[in-house]
Order: sequence, then structure tokens, then C-alpha cells
Amino acid sequence: MKTIRFIAAAALLVLGVTAQAQTDPLPSWNDGAAKKAIVAFVNATTTPTSPTFVPPAERIATFDQDGTLWVEHPMYSQVMYILESVPALVKAKPELAKVAPYSTVLEILKGDRAAIAKLTLPDLEKLAMATLTGMSVDTFSAEAQRWLAAAKDPRWKKPYTELTYLPMQEVLKYLRANGYKTFIVTGGGQDFVRTYSERVYGIPPEQVVGSAVGTTYGYDKAGKPFLTKEPKLLVNDNNGGKPEAIHLMIGRRPHIAFGNSPGDQQMLEYTKAGDGARLSLLVLHDDAKREYAYGPAQKLPDTKVGAFPQALYDKAKKDGWIVISMKDDWKRVFAFE
Amino acid sequence: MKTIRFIAAAALLVLGVTAQAQTDPLPSWNDGAAKKAIVAFVNATTTPTSPTFVPPAERIATFDQDGTLWVEHPMYSQVMYILESVPALVKAKPELAKVAPYSTVLEILKGDRAAIAKLTLPDLEKLAMATLTGMSVDTFSAEAQRWLAAAKDPRWKKPYTELTYLPMQEVLKYLRANGYKTFIVTGGGQDFVRTYSERVYGIPPEQVVGSAVGTTYGYDKAGKPFLTKEPKLLVNDNNGGKPEAIHLMIGRRPHIAFGNSPGDQQMLEYTKAGDGARLSLLVLHDDAKREYAYGPAQKLPDTKVGAFPQALYDKAKKDGWIVISMKDDWKRVFAFE
Repeated sequence: MKTIRFIAAAALLVLGVTAQAQTDPLPSWNDGAAKKAIVAFVNATTTPTSPTFVPPAERIATFDQDGTLWVEHPMYSQVMYILESVPALVKAKPELAKVAPYSTVLEILKGDRAAIAKLTLPDLEKLAMATLTGMSVDTFSAEAQRWLAAAKDPRWKKPYTELTYLPMQEVLKYLRANGYKTFIVTGGGQDFVRTYSERVYGIPPEQVVGSAVGTTYGYDKAGKPFLTKEPKLLVNDNNGGKPEAIHLMIGRRPHIAFGNSPGDQQMLEYTKAGDGARLSLLVLHDDAKREYAYGPAQKLPDTKVGAFPQALYDKAKKDGWIVISMKDDWKRVFAFE
Repeated sequence: MKTIRFIAAAALLVLGVTAQAQTDPLPSWNDGAAKKAIVAFVNATTTPTSPTFVPPAERIATFDQDGTLWVEHPMYSQVMYILESVPALVKAKPELAKVAPYSTVLEILKGDRAAIAKLTLPDLEKLAMATLTGMSVDTFSAEAQRWLAAAKDPRWKKPYTELTYLPMQEVLKYLRANGYKTFIVTGGGQDFVRTYSERVYGIPPEQVVGSAVGTTYGYDKAGKPFLTKEPKLLVNDNNGGKPEAIHLMIGRRPHIAFGNSPGDQQMLEYTKAGDGARLSLLVLHDDAKREYAYGPAQKLPDTKVGAFPQALYDKAKKDGWIVISMKDDWKRVFAFE
């Protein structure tokens, strides 16, 4: 029995399962309050003798995506996908070229990208339904992957999927190495994020919770079954919809959750309201040099994309959530730096 | 490097990960076509040199529950929960005692349980909404667990959770030992099944896909957030709803799927329509002595609960699905035998 235990323990060491005990698991983080809180949380929930020990099966960690795991400025990647899908849509249905909001999008794509801000929320919803539904789930997935392979962010001239934050990638790996199951809980489209989540974050499709339309099961002419994406929102994964979707898709309350804007507030509240050790964190974009600076919290410039209002900042401070300062807490922002 | 590999390999052996290569992984199965098909499928999808090898991350297995993993006769366990929750409902709202279908249920519970068959589907839906919604998800979960701990099946006088099929438990373990992620995909209530799935099947809540009502996020008087179960069906996990829910909750097509009635047909079609090695199986209840015998396929007695029509049997044979004969394929049915 001793021999068995020795061999197993040796292998676990060799395989790196306990390697984080020896080396810094978060090398891209400065030694500040945020890093300390994350490490303290992991120790408190995974040390068997800890009064707030959490059994491995219950270790659930949830992450917002846009602005939390990757860059969301100047515009959410999926909105760029929607806009850049409009020309193909217009090619198939030429009568749309003269109809708003399609005509507006064609103008935007010709030149002034900042004009995106002119699109209203109902415009965007209409465009989303037109470009994200009405095809089979396999067709959508192939189109999204094709776009992601070719599209480039305007500032770094890199694929969007390379613009993930290295410190957050380290947190994902650190939590997983400590038995946590990591989930993305995004207001973005579930089917869209699932096309790259495994490759980009090591998070499999079944651990991506997002906004989702319904699908309908049917058969093609040869009798082969397929699912069609319907223009009907089934899950709106924002605000109160985040804890609702977490209950629907995961069925357990997270022990740790990360966000960056009011759409994440309820997820962070819900996480923090559980018993034992719970940690809620918000990423504050206060680094104009290495990424972007926007609030309007802490007198940072206001924005229409992923705003972080002062009220959210004050609530975080009052309720013991951690605000991660990109400028002060992150030694490096991107892996390619 | 060689030493590292040796230690890792030795530990994996010691830990039993490859133990199934040496011993029969399905000891409760007779050596028939069904067992052979399952073992051949696992070998074809997990042997690295196999032309139909499936990477570990894509190994998804889905199981219907009622009549596939556990006993569904004389009545689905959750319907018993719904009916037996009516007295408490009537106690809280005495005016319901004289209103159908509540009055009908009170009569049934007093004596003739077979009278359940008199309840129409709209009756059952009304009772389900009245007993499964309108409370917080935590309250529901606690009530369901209390009921499951006390309730007994009328024939074996055992908790429902002990009436799982041993051969199917072996299949769950065998698939997991070979890197498959096992999911329940049930027409039953997702929240109900999640209260015991981990303990009973080793399947965590986040791998239970079922019919689900929506929830609403809100706060109690002390400002603590909670989710309320709403009387509105969000996911109807039957028939075409099964592949739709699989797409919503898992986002990948299963490689192997098990069912036992027409509500599973579309899940089995969808599974089988994928490329590479795919296996669809149906459990036929043809063992009146050790469990129950019902069809009406193969001239077995007809039933209103979990029927297996001849048309489904014929489709299975035509499309290369495996029909598992409980009588011929299973050496043992229950662990307590």
C-alpha cells in the first residue's frame, strides 16, 4: 500500500498537479491585493484542513468574456462579426442594400467604423437575428470560424483570439490546476464563443454559457437530421439573466466569479451570497497605454462599450469584491508583448 | 524522460485507469450482440490507431433516464413526487381540495394508485407547475431531497434511487474510464434529477440536461439574492427537444446515446447522423419476471408509461441501432439482487 501511494504521489508531482505549490502560479500579476485575494481564496477552498474547504466536485468558477478575458474595445468582436456578415447577406438579398439598418452598416464598413455607435440597440438586435440565425448550427459554426481565422483587431493587427489577457489565462489555469471547473458566462452568443473557447481558453463548449437563440430539429432532403438557429432569444445572458443561465446550464452557484461591467453585477452578487469562501472580482480598464482606459468609474473616460460606472465600483468596495486594476495589478497584459 | 514516463505509466496502472483492459468492464452483461457492440464502439473510438478515433475532449455520451437508467413503472418517480406533493399544497391553499385535478389526486393517494392513468396530460402539466414552481430553487431542491430520502417504490419497497440498472451503471463507469463525459438527457425535470444525479450515477448537476422552467432573479427582504422557479416551460426535453437541448446545454453531438422510447428517437437519430463511429441503443423492457415487460413492440403488453412501439423497433433494426433485451442481455438487473 505504501508503495502504491508513493508511486501515485510521485507521478502526480511529475505530472505537475502540485507544481503550483512550488512556483508562482500567477507570474503576470504584480504582488498586490488582487493577486493575494485570489491565492488566499484558492488556499482557503482547496486545503483539506481549511474550515472553508470546498469538495472538488463543487469547485465552479465563472468568467465573463468581453472585457474580462479579452479585449472588448473599440467594439465587441461578435458585433464586428455581425457587421462584417452584412455584405454576404446583402449579396444574397440585394433588396436589403437600401434598407436600414443594413444600408447603415454598408456605409460603416466602407469607411468610418466609429459610426457603429450610431446603431441603436434594436438595430443591433435586428442585425444579430439576420446574421446569426436562419441557418444550420453547423453552417453558422463554419462561418464564424472562417471569420475568426481572417479578421484582425484594428489596433494590434492580430486575430481577436490572440487578444486574451495573459493574467486571466493564468487564473484559468491556476484554478483548473486546483480542481476548479472553469466556465465562461458571457452576454455574447453561446454558439459563437463555443467555436474557439477550447482552443483559446482550454474551456470546452459544454462549459460555455452565453446568450442563445432556440433551435429547431428537422431533416434535409436526404432525411439527415439537422438543427436550425431560430430568430428567437431563448437565453439572455446579461444582468439577472446571468445567475438564471448559471442555474439552467450549471446548476450550482459559483465559488469565484469574474466580470467587468454592470451586466456581471448579478452574477457577482449571486456568487458572493453563497456560504463559505466566495470571491467576486471586477476588471477595471485603467491602462490607456497597454490596453484602454474607460470607466466612468474613478474619473476614467466614459464609454458605450463595457462601461464600469462609479456605482458599481462603490458597490464592489462596500461588498468586499475585488477590483482588479489593469494598470497596477497586471505585470503583463498580453502573451505577445 | 524515460523515468518520468515509467512512473506516470506505473501510477496510471496502479490507479486503475487502464484496469478495464484486463478485467471485464461489463460483468452484468451477457456476451451478446449488445455488449459486443458497446465494447467494439469503445475500442473503435479510443484506440489511437483506430481510423474512427475520437479525441478525449469530444467523447460525449448521453443517457435518457426513466426506463433507460432506472425503473419507470408503474409510474415515473417524478410524477409520484408531483402527486405526493399535492397534500402539502392543499394544506396551504384549502380551497384547492374540491377543485380538479387536485381533488382527483387526493382520491388517488387515498387508495387506488392505478387511477393515476385517469389524469390527462393537461392535468399533469397543471399539477407539475403547481408543485414544481413558485418557490426558490433552494427550497425546491430541499423538498425533492426530503421526498427522495423517504419515498419507496411499491414493488421493491426501496428508495427510487436504488432502482437503477446495474448493467447501465457499469456502462456509465466503463465509458468514463475511457474518457467519455457522461450526460443524462431526460424528459424529466432537470432540477429534480440534479438533486441526486451525482450520488446515484456519478453525474454532476452540470451534466444533467432535462426539461426546465425559467427562473427569475430577485432579492429577499434582507437583500439576499435568490432564484424563483417560474411556471413557464423553457426547455421541453422530449422528442426533437432532446437534440435541441443537447445543442443548448452541451454544444456537441454525442458519439453514443441510450434511450428506451419514442421521446428518445430524435436524440438517437442525431447521434447516429454524426460522422465516424456512432452508436445508438434502446433498452427493451421484456423481462416481466425481474423487472417489467412492455412494448407494444415484439408483442409485449402495451403501456401508457414509456411505451416502445413496433415502429421504433423496426426503425432501430433498419438504421443499425442496438436493441438491448433486458431479459437476454442483462445477467443482473439490480445491484441489490
